[in-house]
This record gives sequence, structure tokens and C-alpha cells, in this order.
Amino acid sequence: VTTGRVEAFSDGVFAVAVTLLIFNVQVPHIADGELASALLALWPAYASYVVSFLTIGIMWVNHHELFRLITRVDRALLFINLLLLMVVAFLPFPTAVLGEYIRGGPSSRTAAVLYSGTLELIGLAFGALWIYAARHRDLLIADLDPAYARATVPTFTVGSIAYLLAIAFAFVSAAITLAICALVAIYYIFNRLPEVAGKAENRA
Amino acid sequence: VTTGRVEAFSDGVFAVAVTLLIFNVQVPHIADGELASALLALWPAYASYVVSFLTIGIMWVNHHELFRLITRVDRALLFINLLLLMVVAFLPFPTAVLGEYIRGGPSSRTAAVLYSGTLELIGLAFGALWIYAARHRDLLIADLDPAYARATVPTFTVGSIAYLLAIAFAFVSAAITLAICALVAIYYIFNRLPEVAGKAENRA
Amino acid sequence: VTTGRVEAFSDGVFAVAVTLLIFNVQVPHIADGELASALLALWPAYASYVVSFLTIGIMWVNHHELFRLITRVDRALLFINLLLLMVVAFLPFPTAVLGEYIRGGPSSRTAAVLYSGTLELIGLAFGALWIYAARHRDLLIADLDPAYARATVPTFTVGSIAYLLAIAFAFVSAAITLAICALVAIYYIFNRLPEVAGKAENRA
Amino acid sequence: VTTGRVEAFSDGVFAVAVTLLIFNVQVPHIADGELASALLALWPAYASYVVSFLTIGIMWVNHHELFRLITRVDRALLFINLLLLMVVAFLPFPTAVLGEYIRGGPSSRTAAVLYSGTLELIGLAFGALWIYAARHRDLLIADLDPAYARATVPTFTVGSIAYLLAIAFAFVSAAITLAICALVAIYYIFNRLPEVAGKAENRA
Repeated sequence: VTTGRVEAFSDGVFAVAVTLLIFNVQVPHIADGELASALLALWPAYASYVVSFLTIGIMWVNHHELFRLITRVDRALLFINLLLLMVVAFLPFPTAVLGEYIRGGPSSRTAAVLYSGTLELIGLAFGALWIYAARHRDLLIADLDPAYARATVPTFTVGSIAYLLAIAFAFVSAAITLAICALVAIYYIFNRLPEVAGKAENRA
Repeated sequence: VTTGRVEAFSDGVFAVAVTLLIFNVQVPHIADGELASALLALWPAYASYVVSFLTIGIMWVNHHELFRLITRVDRALLFINLLLLMVVAFLPFPTAVLGEYIRGGPSSRTAAVLYSGTLELIGLAFGALWIYAARHRDLLIADLDPAYARATVPTFTVGSIAYLLAIAFAFVSAAITLAICALVAIYYIFNRLPEVAGKAENRA
Repeated sequence: VTTGRVEAFSDGVFAVAVTLLIFNVQVPHIADGELASALLALWPAYASYVVSFLTIGIMWVNHHELFRLITRVDRALLFINLLLLMVVAFLPFPTAVLGEYIRGGPSSRTAAVLYSGTLELIGLAFGALWIYAARHRDLLIADLDPAYARATVPTFTVGSIAYLLAIAFAFVSAAITLAICALVAIYYIFNRLPEVAGKAENRA
Repeated sequence: VTTGRVEAFSDGVFAVAVTLLIFNVQVPHIADGELASALLALWPAYASYVVSFLTIGIMWVNHHELFRLITRVDRALLFINLLLLMVVAFLPFPTAVLGEYIRGGPSSRTAAVLYSGTLELIGLAFGALWIYAARHRDLLIADLDPAYARATVPTFTVGSIAYLLAIAFAFVSAAITLAICALVAIYYIFNRLPEVAGKAENRA
């Protein structure tokens, strides 16, 4: 299987998943005159929308950069990618749960663990995708330095470690958990695969 | 009609259908402190999400492999493909029904028959697509051995027979029905069109 | 503007609109043991799903065939296409209304008028798209016989006239209205732009 | 990063966001015989659907024209584009709020401010995208006159100023706010980037 179709498959899922996130923000049904405060009270839904949107959005870009280094897809890689997409497409659910239960109490802990745990799974699946590809040189572009490919692995693991921290902080405050997840997204916008990107740029 | 547009049409439907599945998992509305158990109680919704996601995901890949062997699309093939997409896009509904009614009672039987019956229809439509194409050599790529094409037909029928089994087991247990459907999806990940794939790889 | 982007825009809207139709089929919430009859009672939702899916699906194919004859898009054509997509993306709403109110009474008339009226608008917008293009030779491919292009206009108008009939029959029976709309969809599967298609095939 | 992937990312979000707008129009649940008036009473939902659809639709076309002038995407541009898509994908929510609360009272003011404020943010993000690109010649196509690029900036700012006016009029009438937003959409259909478009046409 060439990578073209796998990328098209992935593109579709990423694009739809990211756009469906807005359905987690429900129109409030209230008596006249209280709409402004009802809209402001939805801030957790807005905040989790922003964090999930940025996380999936930047992962899409990084997913594409990875696949510029991959020329061939075997069955195992196909399956890992399918698992990655399955957790990405699952994210709207934890996002909705966090948006509804972030405010105090034991439910906020549960919601924050579910949310950061899903992001941890996404991070692990993404890392597994690249680690598998980096260990199978026949799947990579011919002129890619294998040491180079392995050197990029830490970049992926940063996210997975940060999400573990986010899970731990869920027991302190769901808002802190969300803030850590936001920082990871911003980190990947400005530190996405610097070496891999550089390598790919040389080829272009 | 060239196949490019039919593939784009199919890609869109597959990608959106697979990503919409998450809407079958509804955010529970509960009093504080009971969120963890409410989330755990949603396991049938998660399980049917996973099975439907993998089934559509792997079918998308196989659909693409088929179309690498097809060069031309006539009206009948177009219509069969449209029927296939119509049942694929219908799957979120049986998935939601199974997720809600899988636990015991006569309703679980009904839900499991609806779910596995829809998958049976998807399998039959997919098989019909390939059988029709394999019988019309003018639709296939020039250098494809016709005996070769016919030899792949059993690969498609395995799924249809397994789904019949799943329908029968619906009267025993809806969970067993779902498990059989999961096994079919995993089977197609690791046994997808070996010969067709091999043939296509030789060409690339 | 080249047509590539307009087609991508249109493809996205067609694919998402067709797949969203399934959300009109709501999971019934019933006591145990009555699920089978509750699912059977949803037949109007299934029927309107099938008709709308086939209608949009085949229109997508015809839309693509039209754009194989168009090389350039001016502002007016862009605007007509946007209006066409706007009514296509609107169709899930009348489909849901018809699925809920098709059974008897004055509401079934209203629902059937809304549904067939929306299809009439889609048909008119599609016809306007082609009539506009056929009258502006600088937008069409160089070797297209203008008499040829004009000769295809009747093919488009058949649908618009049939939908008018469907609107009229809404006052007799909403089911007849839906049946007429189904026949139009099937007609366009087997009679889609024969001459235009033939012409395009000669070029390929 | 080449622009191809950023455009595919953007295309997906634009197409899904525009098609999801119809979910803001809810099927009315009423007693028999009142469906016609219930459907007519939904006019604010239809009106906000039309304005949002045209606004996103035409912005998609303009987004594509911009990217025909951009050859390279750096991290900052990637981030600005992600913010633009985030507000575009957010629009279905204000559209739904306006559709429900447009009729009189203080809530209509709040809904109209939210709606026009979101469009203002979309306009600002779109303007920021182009201003950033126009100031970084290494991101633009080689033969683009920089004075030319800068001359197009006013075209973008017209929308942002008109949306400020729409926000101000929200305190008079939500319907006037919606009408101003509709006029901006129509303005951009017939006045989209005349010079940039001309320039791009010369290249094609």
C-alpha cells in the first residue's frame, strides 16, 4: 500500500473530528435577559474546545510530516495508524465530558482523568507509529539517516510524559490538567519535529 | 467516468461516517460523584464504537485496493458503489442502537440482529462490487490476470458468512455477536486481499 | 479561478451532507421488548434517508461530469454553485421533517411540500449552473460543440418538472411525493447526461 | 512545510463547518396541523444558516486564492491559520444562538453581539494571515510585486470594519446585525481580492 491513501484516510478523520468539537458547546435554553451570563458560564466548554482543536490541528501537521519520511505502509503500520485515528476520533467525547464537569467536586477529577488519559493514548499511538516506522528502514525514504530518525523519538515522548503529569494533576484541579494539555499543544506548534522538518526541507 | 471521482466520493463518505460514530457515545448527565461509574456503564457504547470504527476503517483501505485494479466505472458499478456507501453511512444508527440495548433482554437480540444484519449488507454490497468488476474485464486494468481476480472472491465471502453467524448468535447473546463482528474486522486487517495487494504491489 | 478548488469545495459539502443524513434517524427510547416494533415504526425515516442519499449521491456524480466540461469559473458561476451547495446542505432538515411527519394528517402535506420543494430548488440551481455555463463559451472546454451543450439542457429540466409533480401530489399523499422523488433519483442514475458523458469520454 | 497540506487541512475544516450549520435548524415537535406555522417560525434559523453558509463559503474561495500566492508556510503562519480555522469551526455555535434568540428582548442583543463578534474575529484572523504573509517575501511566490500584495490589504479590512458596525447595531436590532453580515458576504462574492485574483490569473 502506498502512503497516499493512508494519508487521505487520516486527513478525513482529523478534519471531521476537529470540526465536530463545536457540538460539545450546547446552546443554553434560558429565560429572556440571562443569555449573557449563561454564555459566560459555558467557559469550560470553550476552553476544552480550544485545547482539543489546537491539539488535533497540530497533530495533523506533524502526522503529515512523518508521512513525508515514510514511503511504504505495511499491515502493522496500517493497524497502528488506524488505532491512532480511533482515539483521535474519540476525543470529542472526553472534551464534552470535561466541558460539562470541570467545575469542582469529584466528577471534575474523573472528567480530567478521562480527558488527559485520552490525550496520553493519542500521544502513545502517535509515538508508536513513528517508533515502528523508524525501526523498519524499508518503510522510510531511501536517503534518510537512521540515526537521524531515532534522534527524533524524544520529541514525541515529551508529550506523553507531559500528559502523565496532566493525569496526576487531575486529582488536584481539572483546570490545571487542561492548562497542561494546552501547553503541550503550544509546545508542539513551536517545536514540531525540528530535525525531521529540517531533513524534509532539504529534500524539497 | 474515471474512477478518481468515485474514489473521492467514497473517501468522503467513509471518513465522515467513521468520525460521526463518536456521537453515539452520549455524555451522561448525573449528580456529582457518580461520573466514574456512569462512564464505566457506557462500555457497550465504547465497544460498538471500536468495532464499527475498525470495520469501516479497514473496509476503506480494501475499497481503495479494489479501485487500484479498476480503471473504468460503468453505470451499474456506480450504482452498486452508491448502495455500498448508503449502508456504510447507515452504520452509525445500528451502532447507537446496539450501544444502548446490548445489556440483556429481548431488545438486545433485536439490536444485535440490526447491527450484524447491517454489517452483512455492507459485506454483500462490497462483494457485489468486486464480483461485478471481476466479470467485466473492460473495467479492470489491462494486465490483470482474470483467473487472479476471480481467485480473490473467496476473501470477500468469508466476511459475509461470518456475519451470518453473528446474526444467528444474536439470539444467544448480543455480546457474542459484537465479538464475532470484531474478529471479522481484525481478520480483514491482517488478511486483506493478499493476492490482489500482491498484484498491485508488483505494478507500483 | 480554476475549477479545481470549486470542485474540492463542492466535494466536501456533498460528502458531509450525504453522511449527516443518518442523524435524522433517532434511536428510539423504549421499554424492553418493544424495540423491534419501534425500529419498524421508523420506516419513514429510513425511506427518506434512502431517497435523499441517492439524490445527493447521483447529483455529486453529475456535478463532476459538468465540471469536466468547464475550464474556467467566473464570479456568477461561483455564486450559482454556492447557492446550489447551500440548498444541498439544507436537505438534511426537510429529510428529517418528512421522516417524522409523513404519516397522515395535514402535517404530512406540509412536510412533503417542504421536502419536494427543496429538491425542486436543488434541481433549479443545478439547471441554472449548467445553463449559465452553456451560454458562456469562454468558460467551457475549447473543443465542446455549443449545440451539443445546449442539447443537454432538457436532461436537467426533466427533474425540475418531476419535482413540481411531486409538490402537487403532496396534497394527495406524502408517500407518493417521496416515491416520485425516488424515481427521479433512479432516473438520473441510469440517464445521467448521456451526451455530455459521451463527449467527455471521447476526450479522456 | 509546503502549502499543500495546510490547504487540505483548511479545506476539510471549511467544508465540514459549512455543512454542519444545518444542525442548528431543529425539527419542530408539534401537534398535528400546526407544522406549517412552526416551520415558518423558524425563519431566524434559516436566515442565520444562509448568512453563515455564504460567509464561510466565500471565505473558503478567498483562502484558496491567498494560498496561490503563498509558496512556503512557516510556524507563525501555520499558527495564525490554525487560529483562523478554530474561529471558523466555532461559527455554528453563534449561528445556533442567533437563530434561537434573534426575536426581541435583551437576549437578542447578546446573541447578535456573539454572532457579529465571532465574524469580526474570523475577519481579523483572515486579515492577519495575509498581512503576515505579505510582510514575509520569502513565503510568497517569487514574481509577486510586494507593493501589489500590500495594496490588497484594504480589501480585507473592509470586512473587519463592517463587522464592527454590525456589533454596534446589535444594540439596536439583531436583525439589522444579521443583514449587515449578509451584505459583507455578498460584497466578498463580487469584490473578492480583485487585484490578487488578477495577478494570479496572469500566472495561470
